[in-house]
Amino acid sequence: TIDPDRLWRSIMETAAIGGTPKGGINRLALTDHDRQVRDWLKSACEDLGCTVTVDEVGNMFAVRPGRLDVPPIAVGSHLDTQPTGGKFDGILGVLAGLELLRTLDEAGYETNAPLMLVNWTNEEGSRFSPAMLGSGVHAGVFDRAYADSRTDRQGVTFGEALDEIGYRGPAKVGSTAFGAMFELHIEQGPILEAEEKAIGVVTGVQGMRWYEIALTGREAHTGSTPMSLRRDALVGAARIIGAVEAIARAHPPGVGTVGLVEVGPNSRNVIPGHVFLTVDFRHPDDAALDVMEKALFATVEEAGRASGLEHALRQVWNSPAVAFDPALVDAVRRAADGLGLSWREIVSGAGHDAAYVARIAPTTMVFVPCAGGLSHNEAEATSYEECRAGAQVLLAAVLDHDRR
Amino acid sequence: TIDPDRLWRSIMETAAIGGTPKGGINRLALTDHDRQVRDWLKSACEDLGCTVTVDEVGNMFAVRPGRLDVPPIAVGSHLDTQPTGGKFDGILGVLAGLELLRTLDEAGYETNAPLMLVNWTNEEGSRFSPAMLGSGVHAGVFDRAYADSRTDRQGVTFGEALDEIGYRGPAKVGSTAFGAMFELHIEQGPILEAEEKAIGVVTGVQGMRWYEIALTGREAHTGSTPMSLRRDALVGAARIIGAVEAIARAHPPGVGTVGLVEVGPNSRNVIPGHVFLTVDFRHPDDAALDVMEKALFATVEEAGRASGLEHALRQVWNSPAVAFDPALVDAVRRAADGLGLSWREIVSGAGHDAAYVARIAPTTMVFVPCAGGLSHNEAEATSYEECRAGAQVLLAAVLDHDRR
Ligand SMILES: NC(=O)NCCC(=O)O
Ligand SMILES: NC(=O)NCCC(=O)O
Repeated sequence: TIDPDRLWRSIMETAAIGGTPKGGINRLALTDHDRQVRDWLKSACEDLGCTVTVDEVGNMFAVRPGRLDVPPIAVGSHLDTQPTGGKFDGILGVLAGLELLRTLDEAGYETNAPLMLVNWTNEEGSRFSPAMLGSGVHAGVFDRAYADSRTDRQGVTFGEALDEIGYRGPAKVGSTAFGAMFELHIEQGPILEAEEKAIGVVTGVQGMRWYEIALTGREAHTGSTPMSLRRDALVGAARIIGAVEAIARAHPPGVGTVGLVEVGPNSRNVIPGHVFLTVDFRHPDDAALDVMEKALFATVEEAGRASGLEHALRQVWNSPAVAFDPALVDAVRRAADGLGLSWREIVSGAGHDAAYVARIAPTTMVFVPCAGGLSHNEAEATSYEECRAGAQVLLAAVLDHDRR
Repeated sequence: TIDPDRLWRSIMETAAIGGTPKGGINRLALTDHDRQVRDWLKSACEDLGCTVTVDEVGNMFAVRPGRLDVPPIAVGSHLDTQPTGGKFDGILGVLAGLELLRTLDEAGYETNAPLMLVNWTNEEGSRFSPAMLGSGVHAGVFDRAYADSRTDRQGVTFGEALDEIGYRGPAKVGSTAFGAMFELHIEQGPILEAEEKAIGVVTGVQGMRWYEIALTGREAHTGSTPMSLRRDALVGAARIIGAVEAIARAHPPGVGTVGLVEVGPNSRNVIPGHVFLTVDFRHPDDAALDVMEKALFATVEEAGRASGLEHALRQVWNSPAVAFDPALVDAVRRAADGLGLSWREIVSGAGHDAAYVARIAPTTMVFVPCAGGLSHNEAEATSYEECRAGAQVLLAAVLDHDRR
């Protein structure tokens, strides 16, 4: 049995690293706060006698040996957050993994396979696009050079930031292989709470695509430039923002969002000459995403034409829908049943490291509810009891898998 | 006769202060670049033996004595620019005024009234809203405490910035009174160029109103939050941006622009929880602005309701339409005629210090064309010949007025 107090304490203790006045966390990938929480995790793992390995893109792996010389079973998630993120997204998965190591240690329990705790780099994709970058490199979806070249909105590269915080490790990417991975995470959506289920047995992850759009019009005076002579990049952007919403609503259960907008020169009395914006489309069906994408391309053409804009539209990320490993999904279902916890099957709306890891190893996830389905918000909340249940299911599923 | 070479040289010399690679100027009010150009102007005026006075809000006044003890005739404009501004907006008016002082000095010409060159503080309104703040305080439209309290988007107040650059002068606001003002400016619009007129005889300034809108929705995950549960502040903002354009087009010759947008947290995979945006409405008829304003209020209500947003909408500036002094307008017309220059009457689409000064003294303006009507753009261009013609008309109108 895991120690729910110890788990909760570790969540609250690390929440101070980058903690915000509103009770959330601002711990963007590869910032000094990220370094601090990595240092904390490293020393917590070393206190248990685990060896901590860091690979070339900063992914951290802590191994607790098993009885047999077989590939380890991995647990884990990520410790980076959104700029106004919560205390549980990713963090619960890593710290519940740490709690498993501590529980097994205390109980003197020897697993067959080694157990490996992983902290993946830049899962959020907020500072460096795309999301799930560390696990993506590990899984061979991206190469190391691609990761290193990603830039934040200030022009700092992933590689520079990684070197800066001292977390570029010597391990070759992918050299730390494992035989299976279980990732515990908060749902980040409203379904489990609405249906009063304690556990989400995650069967897969929906498809997701990201786009970047650059619109160029002409800066001009807001007072003396007639409406008919304008090339207002923001008017074009507004049309696209409205269309992204409409396209998503036309393809249920798809979702579509413009999350980031930068306006140039951003002055009250200058007609905007430049707008940069991003689009996030998701759907469980990749074919529906193809249709949504076509509609987006048409919209950008149309908005550009209507406002006399030059426009550049690029797909910058495409993570197809993922189905998790049926045997591991079963292990989670059995674990929930065994503990007498209510559960339902669920497809993840959010992206997770597990989605990429699933390409190279049997993988699955465990979800727990979060209040109001709210995530990527400082008010994100999962209760002590919910964290306990999730960690307990994670432990039971891992040991079940280890016994087979 | 003014010296067009000397005028052009002074424009090109000061353009280096805050000059941009694209040939424009980034010299926001009360920045160190603003200080540098103020120092330049002060020393140029002192070289002519003029006394330079600075008032409590940083307005600069250089006086060349006249024969009679009567209120001075003022000329001038502003030296601050937009973040991506041009080399002529405001600057031509100040440096042509300096050229008048130099020309009269060289010719040993003694005017009846003293001549006063003015550089008004924060005309652009880009760093500190509203525009025409220094001339507005001078004219009693705003008080000094109001000006001091204006903040830029980083939270620095006007008062702090003014103290920081050392341009808070001892002269009480309004103590440097004058009997009339002529302001030379580029048109910043397309009319003179299209009609091939050398000079705009400016009869007034259209009405203008600024608004600030704050929208608050709920930050949430872009992937796991169903469309139906969203409160996306950016979707609401997009609706408002589209409506501002539509409202303006429905009230010709009115114009409407959203120039500034800030999104929070501005992360690709977070539904925007906060948007701040500004609206700029203009129309020669104040009654039409009332109608446009009502439509804006209704739009914000509607956008708020549609996206489940809290919303705050404030009018932050209202500068009614202005008619210039008929006698001074006549003086400009005569001056253009006397020099054999083509001209047309024109109402200014842009706001100018002259619009506020007109409340306390007979005032008018002289316009010259700019290429493509383009302003608030680094590519803003007025030719050597056009600058020469404008300065010459300014001199002739001032001397005509001085003789009466
Ligand atoms: N779980 C999570 O919030 N991941 C960030 C990637 C995404 O946008 O889904
Ligand atoms: N002339 C000029 O660009 N003034 C700035 C104030 C305005 O927006 O009209």
